[in-house]
Amino acid sequence: MEKISENICFGGTQGVYKHTSTSCNCDMTFGLFLPAEAKDGPVPVLWYLSGLTCTHENAMTKAGAQAWAAEQGIALVFPDTSPRGDDVADDEAYDLGKGAGFYLNATEAPWSTHFRMWDYIASELPELLGQNFPLDMDRQAITGHSMGGHGALTLAMSLPGRFKSVSAFAPICNPIASDWGIKQLSAYLGNDRAAWAAHDATVLMGDKGFDGPVLVDVGTDDQFIELLRPEALAAAIADKRQEATIRLQKGYDHSYFFVSTFMEDHITFHAEALYAD
Amino acid sequence: MEKISENICFGGTQGVYKHTSTSCNCDMTFGLFLPAEAKDGPVPVLWYLSGLTCTHENAMTKAGAQAWAAEQGIALVFPDTSPRGDDVADDEAYDLGKGAGFYLNATEAPWSTHFRMWDYIASELPELLGQNFPLDMDRQAITGHSMGGHGALTLAMSLPGRFKSVSAFAPICNPIASDWGIKQLSAYLGNDRAAWAAHDATVLMGDKGFDGPVLVDVGTDDQFIELLRPEALAAAIADKRQEATIRLQKGYDHSYFFVSTFMEDHITFHAEALYAD
Repeated sequence: MEKISENICFGGTQGVYKHTSTSCNCDMTFGLFLPAEAKDGPVPVLWYLSGLTCTHENAMTKAGAQAWAAEQGIALVFPDTSPRGDDVADDEAYDLGKGAGFYLNATEAPWSTHFRMWDYIASELPELLGQNFPLDMDRQAITGHSMGGHGALTLAMSLPGRFKSVSAFAPICNPIASDWGIKQLSAYLGNDRAAWAAHDATVLMGDKGFDGPVLVDVGTDDQFIELLRPEALAAAIADKRQEATIRLQKGYDHSYFFVSTFMEDHITFHAEALYAD
Repeated sequence: MEKISENICFGGTQGVYKHTSTSCNCDMTFGLFLPAEAKDGPVPVLWYLSGLTCTHENAMTKAGAQAWAAEQGIALVFPDTSPRGDDVADDEAYDLGKGAGFYLNATEAPWSTHFRMWDYIASELPELLGQNFPLDMDRQAITGHSMGGHGALTLAMSLPGRFKSVSAFAPICNPIASDWGIKQLSAYLGNDRAAWAAHDATVLMGDKGFDGPVLVDVGTDDQFIELLRPEALAAAIADKRQEATIRLQKGYDHSYFFVSTFMEDHITFHAEALYAD
C-alpha cells in the first residue's frame, strides 16, 4: 500500500492511499479520514460510496463529512467507484464503465476482468483497512450517494450483521425498473434477471430487509428522481415494516449542495447506532 | 446579469451568476450564497476571496462555509480571482495572469487592459450585489485564503468603515518581501515600490491598522509558509497594538482541509462583528 497524501483536517488526518487490488485486478485508490481519537485506539468506521462519474475524491473534498465525523470520533472510508487503468474496459457514456462500477461483480465480457466492485467493497478493502489502520471493524456503518446509495443499501442488506446502520442520499432505489440500472445490469450481468434482483434495494428490502435503522434523503427537485424511484423503496419499506426514516427534502436537487446539507444528520444517525452498545 | 445555476443548500440558495464587468473589461462569474433569512429582508455579507489558481468555485464547493453562514444568517460572496476570456493576457506560470489577479489594478502592459481586480472587488461587484440581491451593504465583513487573504487584509485596511471585521486563512502577509509578491507586483505595477506598498498587508498594518477585529490562521506545516511571512504581519500587529488574534495551527498545511477545519471559527468571528450593533 502506498501513501498518496495525508492532510491534517478537523484534528484528524485525511489520507489518500493506493494499493494493488486482487478483486479488481488493477491499482485502486481510496480516501480514509481518521479522527484524532484513532491515535488512542480503534475507532468505528462509516463507509461512503460515491455516485456515477465520481472517484474517491469527490465526497472527500465536497461533502463536508469530516467536520461531523471528527465530532463523533468516527473514521470515514471513501472508495473509488470502479476499477481504473489503461487496460480497464470503458464506455463513452458517463454511466457505464469507469466511474460506474455499480457495486457488483460483472460476469459479462469485457467487464468481468476488472469490474468486481462488490468483492472489493465487501471483502478486500475492509480486510486491508482492518490490517493497516486503527479501525474497529466490529463497528461499521455505510452510506452513499446516488449509485453509491444503491451500493450502500444493497451491501447492507446482503451482508447481515456487517453494518449497524445504513443511510443513503438520493439512492438508485430500484434499478431493475429504471434506465439507471437496466443499462448497467444488462451490460455487467447479462440477461439473467435473478442476478439483477440481488442488486436492487427495493427487491432486497421486500425479501430480507435490514436488521438496524435506515435513513434515506431525496430532494423533491432532484433532476434524476424518475431514475431513482424512491417511491418503490418507500413502498417496500412500509410493506416490510422496516425501521426507517424516508425524507423528501423540499427544493433540494441531486448535487453535493444537497449531500453536504444533510451530512450532519446522517453522521449523527450512524453515530447513535455505532455507539449503541 | 445572467444566472448560471442555483442550488438549494443548507436551507438557502447557492447561486452562480455571470455579468459583464466594466472594471475588468470582460465577463466575470461569481458565487453568492443567500441564507433562508434573505427571503425576509437584507442580510449581512461576508466576502471570501480565493487564492492562486482558483475560480469562484473552489471555496464554494470545498470550504464548507455555507453550513455556518446558514446558521448565522449571513450571505457569502465568492468572486473569481482574475479577469477571464480568450483576449485576456496570461502567463504560463500558475502565479501570474489568469487565476492570479492579486487584487490590484495593474498599470503595466499587457495586464492593465483587464487586470483591475481592486476596482472590481472594491466598487463594481458590491454595487451590483447591492442592487440585485437582498444584502445589507452596511454590514459587510471580508475573509480569504492565501492570495485571497492578502486581498482581504489589504482591502479591509484601505477602505476604512467598509468592513466590520477581517480574517484570513494562510494569507500572503508581506508580498513586497517574498517571491509570492515581488513577481506579481513588478509585473502588474512595474518598479514603483511605493505602489507596491499599498498592496502589502504588513506595511498597511504599520501605517493604518484596521478599525475592528482581525483573525488570522496559519498552519505550522504550511508548505508555503516562507512565502506567506506571517511573522512579519504578527510583528506589525503587535507593534501597532491592533486588536487581533493570530493562530499558528499545529500540523495544518495550505489546503482546503485546513480552511474547512477553521471555517466555523471565522464565520462565528465575523457574525459577532456583523451583529454587534
